[in-house]
Amino acid sequence: MKTVAQKIFRPRNKRLSRKTPNDAMEAHPSNIETAAQMDNIQHLPTPPSVARDISHHLEAVMERAHHGGGWLLSGIICINILILGCALVSGSAFNSVAITAVHRQIFLIILLLLTMTWMLFYAAVTARKDQAILFKDSHAGPVWLRAGLLLFGLLSLIMDIFKIATYVGYLHCDSAVKVAFPVVQAVFLLIQTYFLWIHAKDCVQLQTNFTRCGLTLMLSTNLVVWMAAVTEESIHQTEIPELNVNISHKMYRAQFGNKKCKCSHSACDTFKDAFYYLYPFNIEYSLFASAMAYVMWKNVGRLVEDHSHHSVTFRLKDVCLGPLTGILLVVAGLVTFILYEVYILKEDEEYRNDGLLIHFIMNIVIVSMMSLSTVIGCIVYRLDHREHVSEKNPTRSLDVGLLVGASMGQFIISYFTIVAVVATGARGHLNALNLSWAVLTVLQLGLQNYFIIEGLHREPYHVMREAALHSNAHVLPEHTEMSVVMESNKSTYFLTPSLDDKLSWKRRVLKEVCAFLLLANIILWIMPAFGARPQFDHPVEIHFYKFAMWAAIVNIGLPFGIFYRMHSVASLFEVYVIS
Amino acid sequence: MKTVAQKIFRPRNKRLSRKTPNDAMEAHPSNIETAAQMDNIQHLPTPPSVARDISHHLEAVMERAHHGGGWLLSGIICINILILGCALVSGSAFNSVAITAVHRQIFLIILLLLTMTWMLFYAAVTARKDQAILFKDSHAGPVWLRAGLLLFGLLSLIMDIFKIATYVGYLHCDSAVKVAFPVVQAVFLLIQTYFLWIHAKDCVQLQTNFTRCGLTLMLSTNLVVWMAAVTEESIHQTEIPELNVNISHKMYRAQFGNKKCKCSHSACDTFKDAFYYLYPFNIEYSLFASAMAYVMWKNVGRLVEDHSHHSVTFRLKDVCLGPLTGILLVVAGLVTFILYEVYILKEDEEYRNDGLLIHFIMNIVIVSMMSLSTVIGCIVYRLDHREHVSEKNPTRSLDVGLLVGASMGQFIISYFTIVAVVATGARGHLNALNLSWAVLTVLQLGLQNYFIIEGLHREPYHVMREAALHSNAHVLPEHTEMSVVMESNKSTYFLTPSLDDKLSWKRRVLKEVCAFLLLANIILWIMPAFGARPQFDHPVEIHFYKFAMWAAIVNIGLPFGIFYRMHSVASLFEVYVIS
Repeated sequence: MKTVAQKIFRPRNKRLSRKTPNDAMEAHPSNIETAAQMDNIQHLPTPPSVARDISHHLEAVMERAHHGGGWLLSGIICINILILGCALVSGSAFNSVAITAVHRQIFLIILLLLTMTWMLFYAAVTARKDQAILFKDSHAGPVWLRAGLLLFGLLSLIMDIFKIATYVGYLHCDSAVKVAFPVVQAVFLLIQTYFLWIHAKDCVQLQTNFTRCGLTLMLSTNLVVWMAAVTEESIHQTEIPELNVNISHKMYRAQFGNKKCKCSHSACDTFKDAFYYLYPFNIEYSLFASAMAYVMWKNVGRLVEDHSHHSVTFRLKDVCLGPLTGILLVVAGLVTFILYEVYILKEDEEYRNDGLLIHFIMNIVIVSMMSLSTVIGCIVYRLDHREHVSEKNPTRSLDVGLLVGASMGQFIISYFTIVAVVATGARGHLNALNLSWAVLTVLQLGLQNYFIIEGLHREPYHVMREAALHSNAHVLPEHTEMSVVMESNKSTYFLTPSLDDKLSWKRRVLKEVCAFLLLANIILWIMPAFGARPQFDHPVEIHFYKFAMWAAIVNIGLPFGIFYRMHSVASLFEVYVIS
Repeated sequence: MKTVAQKIFRPRNKRLSRKTPNDAMEAHPSNIETAAQMDNIQHLPTPPSVARDISHHLEAVMERAHHGGGWLLSGIICINILILGCALVSGSAFNSVAITAVHRQIFLIILLLLTMTWMLFYAAVTARKDQAILFKDSHAGPVWLRAGLLLFGLLSLIMDIFKIATYVGYLHCDSAVKVAFPVVQAVFLLIQTYFLWIHAKDCVQLQTNFTRCGLTLMLSTNLVVWMAAVTEESIHQTEIPELNVNISHKMYRAQFGNKKCKCSHSACDTFKDAFYYLYPFNIEYSLFASAMAYVMWKNVGRLVEDHSHHSVTFRLKDVCLGPLTGILLVVAGLVTFILYEVYILKEDEEYRNDGLLIHFIMNIVIVSMMSLSTVIGCIVYRLDHREHVSEKNPTRSLDVGLLVGASMGQFIISYFTIVAVVATGARGHLNALNLSWAVLTVLQLGLQNYFIIEGLHREPYHVMREAALHSNAHVLPEHTEMSVVMESNKSTYFLTPSLDDKLSWKRRVLKEVCAFLLLANIILWIMPAFGARPQFDHPVEIHFYKFAMWAAIVNIGLPFGIFYRMHSVASLFEVYVIS
C-alpha cells in the first residue's frame, strides 16, 4: 500500500519543488486533502478494505490533477482534422472536377508524414526518458489486437506494393502522387505497427500535453485513411454496371479502370485486381490502429497499480461439450465456406443460388445455436449470485464501449436487410432464408452483448476465493464488529465451492457456453474476413437501396462487424477465465 | 454528513430486508466494505475532508451497485429502435415503390403511442410512490433547456395543426395515415413537454430497470422523429429544380407538391408552405427532448447530495465594457438580419447579393470580435492560478459532452464550405467573404469550446473563498499535523482577494469576456433560428456538392449549430457566475 502511494507522489512532488524554489508545498486545497489522506492512510488503524478504497480514490484525484488543457487541445485538433478529412473525402467522391483523388492523397500524405514524425520523436525522445513511462496498462493492447494489427498490416503492405506496381505503369500520363501515396503509406505501416507493438501499453507521464496531441493526430490520421479507403472501395464497386448485378459481382471487378490513360506494362490489370481484393484488410488495419491509439490517448497521465497479472490457468479439461460442438461447427463452416466460394464464381445461375443456399443455411444454424447457448448462459447468470465488480475500471469500460460500438456495423446491415426483404415481400426460399438469417443475427448480437458485458462485470472467481479466504483468516479475529455481518449463513456460500477443486455445475455451464461461443465467433469472423460477400451476390438489397447506397452501408458496416467478432473472441476468453 | 449516509442507506436496506425474510444482511463483499466504511465514518476521528471524500466514494459505490442489467437492456432496446428507424427512413427516402412515407408514419405512430403510454404510466404510478424520487439533480433540465423545449414545442404544435389542415384536403385521394400522424404527434408534444417540464430533474430510485427502458424508448422515439424530419425537409428542398438555384431558394418552396392528387380546399398551398417553414423548429424540439431524456436516463438510480443551490448573486454592476459592446452587437446584428431577410426575397439579383454581403460582413465582424475576446479570456486563465475542480461531476461531464457534440454541426458546415470555396478558386468578393466567415467560425468554435470547458472546470470563486475561510477557522486548531502544509506563504493568496469586495482585474476581465460572448452567442442564435439560410442563397456549395448532399449536410448540421449557441449561452452564464 505504502509503496503505491509513494510511487504516486514521487513525480508530483518533484514537479512541485521545481515550481517553488523554497521547497514549501503549495497550499492548494487538493494538496491539503491528499496530505490529510496520506496521513490517514499511514497512521490511522483503518481496516484494509477502506485503505484500498482510499488509495483508489486518491489515485483518481491524482489522475484528474494531471489532466491539463492538453486533452482539450488534442480533442479540438482531432475534431478539426477529422471533419476537414471528411469534407475532402466527400468532395473528391461527389465532385470529379475541382477536387480529385490527387488532392485527397496530398492531404493524406501530409497527415501520414506528420504522424510518422511524431511517432519517431516519441520512440526516440519521450519514451527514453526516466519517469516517462512509470506504469504500463496490462489490459491495453492485448495479444489478439496486436496480432490482428500485424496480420492486417502485412496484407496492407502487400496492397501498397501492388498499388505502386500498378501506378508506376501510369506514370507517363497520370500524377506522380498516385505512386508517392502508397510509398509513404508503406513506410507509415511499418513505423506504426512497430510503434503500437512496442508502446501500446504505455501510460505516459512526461510531456503529457504534447503526447496527447500526437496520439489524437495518429487517431485522426487513421480514421481519415479509413474514410478514404471506404469511399474508394465503394466507388470502385459502384462502377460495375447495375444491370448486371444479378450475375456475380466479383467477376466484374477487374474490368473497369481508367479508360483514357493506358498502362505501360502488361501486369497492370492483375495488380489492380489484386489490390482491390486487399482493400478490406487495409480498412480493418485502420480500425485496429485507431482503437489502439484511442486507448493510448486515454492512458496518458494515468496512474495504474501495476499489479502482477493474476496467473490464471486456462484449463480445458473441465469442459468438453462446448469446445467439441464448437470445433465441429468451425469445420462445417469452413467446408460450406469453401463450397460457397467455389459455387459463387461459376457462370451458371443455378450453382450460384446453391452456393448462397448453403451459405445462408450454415449461417442460420450457427447463429441459432449461438443464440440458444447464450440464453442458457444468461439463465445461469440469473441463478448465480456472484457479486458485480464495484470498482471502476477505465479499460473495461472502454472495452465494453468498443464492443457495443463495433456491433453496430452488423446491426445496421441486418436491419437494412430486414427492411428491404420485408418491403419486397420476401418471395422465394432464398429471400426467406436471408430474412431469417438477418433476424436471428440481430437476436444473437443483442444476447451476446448482454452475455459478455454481464460476464465481464462479475467478480472473478479466483478473486472471490482469495477474498473469502482472506476475510476468514485475517479480518475476523481483528475486527470483531464485523463478525455480525459475517455470521450470516450466506458467507458459507462463498467458501464451500472454493475449497473443493471440482467445478460447480453453474461455473461449468458458463465455461461450456463461453467456449462454444468463442469458437462460433471465430468461424463467423473467418467467413467475411476472407471474402464472403453474400450481400452483393444476392440482388434484393441492391435493387432496393440502389447499388451506391448499399455498397456504402456494407463497406462501412462489415469491417466493424469483422472487428466485433475478433473482439468478442477476446472478451469471451476473458469471461471464460473469470467464470 | 451522517444524514447523507443514512439517506443513502435507507432504500437499500429496505430492499435487502425484502429479499431475505430472516432479516439477516447478506455477506456480499461490497456490503462488508461499505459496512466497514460506515463504521469508519462514524467512529474514527477522521478530518472533515477525508470524511467528505469517503462519502463521495461510498456514493459512487452505491450508485454502481444500483446498476442492474437494466441499463444494458435499455441500451440494446435503444440501438434496435434507432437502427430499425434509420433503415425505414432511408428506405422510404431512397425507394419510392416498396416503402412509402405511410409505412414510415405507421412506424412512428406506434413509437409515439408506446412512449406516451410509458410517460403516462410514469407520471401516474412510478412518480407518485414514496421513495421513488428521493433526489433531484439540480443541474438537470436547466431553465434555458425547458424554455427552449416549450417554445419549440409550441411551434411544432402549430406545424402539426397546419399539417392536419393540409392533409384533410387530400383525404379523398391519399392515405388517412397522413392525417393521423400529425394528430398523434400533437398529443405526444403536449404530453412530452408536460412530462419533461415536471420530471426532468428526477433521479428515479424505484422500478429502475423499467424506467430506464422507458427513457431509452423516449430517447430513440425522439431521435427517429428527428431523422424522419431531417429527411423529409431535405427531400422537400431537393424537389426544387437545380437549374434555378441561383435564384433564391425560398421562392420555390411552395410550388411543388403532389401532382396527381388535388387538394379539396383552397387554403392547402398556404398551409403547406407554412408548415414547411416550421420544420426546423420541430427538428430542434426533437433534439432538445432527446438531450433531456438522455440526462434523465443517466440520472436513474443516481444518489446526489441535494445541496442547497449556492445562491450566487448575479451582479452586472462590476462589468460594463462587455455587456455594452455585446448589446451594440446584438442591435447591429438584428438590423442587418432584417435587411438581409428583406433583400433576399427580392427578385433582383443585385439586391440579393447586397443582402448576402451585409450578412457575411456582419457575421465576420461578430465572429472576429468573439475570437479576440476569447483569446484575451484564455490568456487570463493562463495567468490565473485558480485550482481545477478535482471532484467528479457527471452532470458537468454530460454538459461538456453535449456542448462539444453540438458544436460538430457548425464545424461540419464550415469545413464543407471551406473545401468547396477553396476548390472552386474563391473568385469574387462574396466567395472571399464566405471563406473568411467559415475560417473564422472554425477558429471561434475551437476557442470558445476551450474557454467554456476550462471555465467550468475551475474552482468556483465563492467555494474557494469559503474553503479558505473554513480552513483558517477550524482546521488549524484541531489538526496540528496539517499546519506544516498551511504555513506556506501561498495560503495568503487565497485569502487576500476574498476579504475585500472589489474584483481583482483578472476576475473582472473574465466576467467582461463572458458577458460579451454570451450576448454575441445570442445574436448568432437568433439569425439561423429565425430563418437566415445563406447556405442556400449562395450557389457555390450547392453547385459543388450537388443540391441533395448539401441540403442533407445543412439540415443535419444547422439544428445542432442552433442548439450549440443556446447551450453556450447557458454555459457562459455559469462561467460568469463562478468567475
